Amino acid sequence: MNSRTPFALKGDIVHTPSFAEFTYYEDAYLVCQDARVAGIYRELPGRYRDIPVADHTGSLIIPGMCDMHLHAPQYPFRGLGQNIEKPDWDSWFDQYAFPEEKRYEDLDYAGRAYARLVGDLLQSTTTRACIFATIHRPATEHLMELLHAAGLCAYVGKVNMDRNSAPGLLETTEETLAETRLWLARTAGKYSDVKPILTPRYTPSCTNGAMEGLSSLMDEFRVPVQTHLSEGPDEIAWVRELMPDIRFYGQAYDRYGMMGTRQPALMAHCVFSTPEETEMLCRPNVMIAHCPDANLNYSGTAAPVLRYIRKGARVGLGSDVSGGRTLNLLRIVSEAITASKIHWAYCERTGVPGEKRDVLTLANAFYLATKGGGAFWGDTGSFETGYAFDAVVLDDTRFSDGNPRSVYERIERVISLGDERETKEKYVNGSCVYRRKSG
Amino acid sequence: MNSRTPFALKGDIVHTPSFAEFTYYEDAYLVCQDARVAGIYRELPGRYRDIPVADHTGSLIIPGMCDMHLHAPQYPFRGLGQNIEKPDWDSWFDQYAFPEEKRYEDLDYAGRAYARLVGDLLQSTTTRACIFATIHRPATEHLMELLHAAGLCAYVGKVNMDRNSAPGLLETTEETLAETRLWLARTAGKYSDVKPILTPRYTPSCTNGAMEGLSSLMDEFRVPVQTHLSEGPDEIAWVRELMPDIRFYGQAYDRYGMMGTRQPALMAHCVFSTPEETEMLCRPNVMIAHCPDANLNYSGTAAPVLRYIRKGARVGLGSDVSGGRTLNLLRIVSEAITASKIHWAYCERTGVPGEKRDVLTLANAFYLATKGGGAFWGDTGSFETGYAFDAVVLDDTRFSDGNPRSVYERIERVISLGDERETKEKYVNGSCVYRRKSG
Repeated sequence: MNSRTPFALKGDIVHTPSFAEFTYYEDAYLVCQDARVAGIYRELPGRYRDIPVADHTGSLIIPGMCDMHLHAPQYPFRGLGQNIEKPDWDSWFDQYAFPEEKRYEDLDYAGRAYARLVGDLLQSTTTRACIFATIHRPATEHLMELLHAAGLCAYVGKVNMDRNSAPGLLETTEETLAETRLWLARTAGKYSDVKPILTPRYTPSCTNGAMEGLSSLMDEFRVPVQTHLSEGPDEIAWVRELMPDIRFYGQAYDRYGMMGTRQPALMAHCVFSTPEETEMLCRPNVMIAHCPDANLNYSGTAAPVLRYIRKGARVGLGSDVSGGRTLNLLRIVSEAITASKIHWAYCERTGVPGEKRDVLTLANAFYLATKGGGAFWGDTGSFETGYAFDAVVLDDTRFSDGNPRSVYERIERVISLGDERETKEKYVNGSCVYRRKSG
Repeated sequence: MNSRTPFALKGDIVHTPSFAEFTYYEDAYLVCQDARVAGIYRELPGRYRDIPVADHTGSLIIPGMCDMHLHAPQYPFRGLGQNIEKPDWDSWFDQYAFPEEKRYEDLDYAGRAYARLVGDLLQSTTTRACIFATIHRPATEHLMELLHAAGLCAYVGKVNMDRNSAPGLLETTEETLAETRLWLARTAGKYSDVKPILTPRYTPSCTNGAMEGLSSLMDEFRVPVQTHLSEGPDEIAWVRELMPDIRFYGQAYDRYGMMGTRQPALMAHCVFSTPEETEMLCRPNVMIAHCPDANLNYSGTAAPVLRYIRKGARVGLGSDVSGGRTLNLLRIVSEAITASKIHWAYCERTGVPGEKRDVLTLANAFYLATKGGGAFWGDTGSFETGYAFDAVVLDDTRFSDGNPRSVYERIERVISLGDERETKEKYVNGSCVYRRKSG
């Protein structure tokens, strides 16, 4: 079965065409034609009668999930450095992030490390990702090649850092712009599924000169941009010091056209955004990458994503490996719900009006991980007709408890407790990219 | 190897004799004699030269973990019912907890369900647990038999409910006392490793008459008591309604001698304890079962356990399956750290003095899961000489990333990301109770 020939998956189909609720089709057929969803059927209609059917009766079939924030070079130290004996989370950069990222100058090391990441991504529920690489162009290009070879969809960014970085990981302004231009020229049209995305790490690591140059490259190559925004109070204070003429952090990107006014913009975190910044985040060409696991690890604070969504913001979910601990977006969906409860409890206890008992439902959080983030690629993350055929078949028999369970309950449980062991088959743009070995 | 013959485990040994920090012994021998830890050695001394050695070179060896709050009958619906479309967590009782608990009247059903739980507990890092069963004496006795046969240590409680329960799950006061007496008489001296613990569910489900009777039985049979305390604001308000003459919830137990004045008391949750209640919790015969996963799921609020610990309270960790999602205490250790960050951030944002940047370290949280809870059984949960020989061998090679990692980093990662797949061997009181099939 490839993306050209029509084919069908049979099983218990679940998706969230709307933010509000799941739609289920038990024991139904999900038809793929030309890499897109052609329809969901209880019985295959005449024109599809003879197409190949992958029979996954009893398994769940969900849209592929989109990891909207992932630091590829940090995967080797996932789960490390988040519990410091004397809480001082700055040391995470010095002890883990910067020393590890430096190693990607060595293309052999990068090849081995990125191959492990891509192998593990393949087994996860993730079909698409927006990825930070390192400052190193060759390693970044290699990661793009690996993702393409694996059949995953991704935006990948060569990171820019021309100030406040570690020795050996600091570019001059000229270098960062020249390498970015070369990288964009080499990769912008190379793959249909893996694309470059402009990636100034964050304001503290990019001079105004770099930002100006990147701004021009963004328009010249018509590429989107991803970066970090309002992740922690210390970072926000630092940005205010570096750019004393701005009122809020988001302006540091907006003045370079990087807040959705010229190209699509993806803003990771947005935990402490002010009302003015929130308005900026609600622009139609901006998306928030909500990273609940990383946020709770780092600052103990949950981003008020429901507030953003009610105001019209577009939101996807991110693992933020390795500020977050895991690539497993099922767990991140679960964390997003918990984070929304934490935010609600905070509002309740402190008397913030208007947000009481306003928490993400399971369907809401599932939507963010699928159709929410998927919107960054257009019609993606849902099984509506015409959407990209990204599908994950989940074998949830590990959780069988001897009782009949509804599809809602099964999806709830796989989100609460599932991991890569549940992934049975995975399709991206209609191509099967992963099939579990046993059964 | 059994508990009589001395033997040793060889590997990378990690424990927390103190709350403050880990102690490591790389590539060392942990010797067991007469079911107790006889010592840790770099080289085996002469008298142990010929004892059998289980060579786990390269694996981690940690003390067994103690799950201080676990509802055994709720295991079949783990991960379910925590995300209600319109947040109304009362329906969790009506939809899941009560209907499921009713089924344990049927001993066949109970046998099947409890066998699954005990099988999964065996593969986890848990060696000891404090367990709520149901109101049903026969099923409760059966669970005790299964735990004993599996070689696990446990306190198990027949639950008391003579008001505010569901039809079919409500006892009369006379019934609950008569069945409890019979159960205690049949089980109090039956096993050395599995013991009864008095288990009035919580104040709303037990009349004063029941509490008076249970109070007498507690002293007559010299058994400890476990129950729920100050889990949520609604529950606390309800208790105040039911007992208008008390100033705080803890008094509802204290007046029946169930707050450590006569027998040991284990109080689950304690999220919203007042200063007066906190003082009561600091009595030497009281232990708090901190259940961070369940608390964040249920109320979005983290119990201020560091505050309790600083004031002298004894604290262990609980999964609270199935208010919590998982039996996996590694994940609960991780959640305890996150919960402490959430509490710290709450204090920081609301200006609560004196608790700034005061979060659980990895060693602190590990201590709670091992020696903290273990204290409920006396010298347990640490590898100090004379302590009960409860040990778990963890094969953490699944997380190998091509880089050398310190023992601290390996334990950090297994706590962040590990599950039952890491359990290679498990010992309780010197007996091997689980050995992984492959390797």
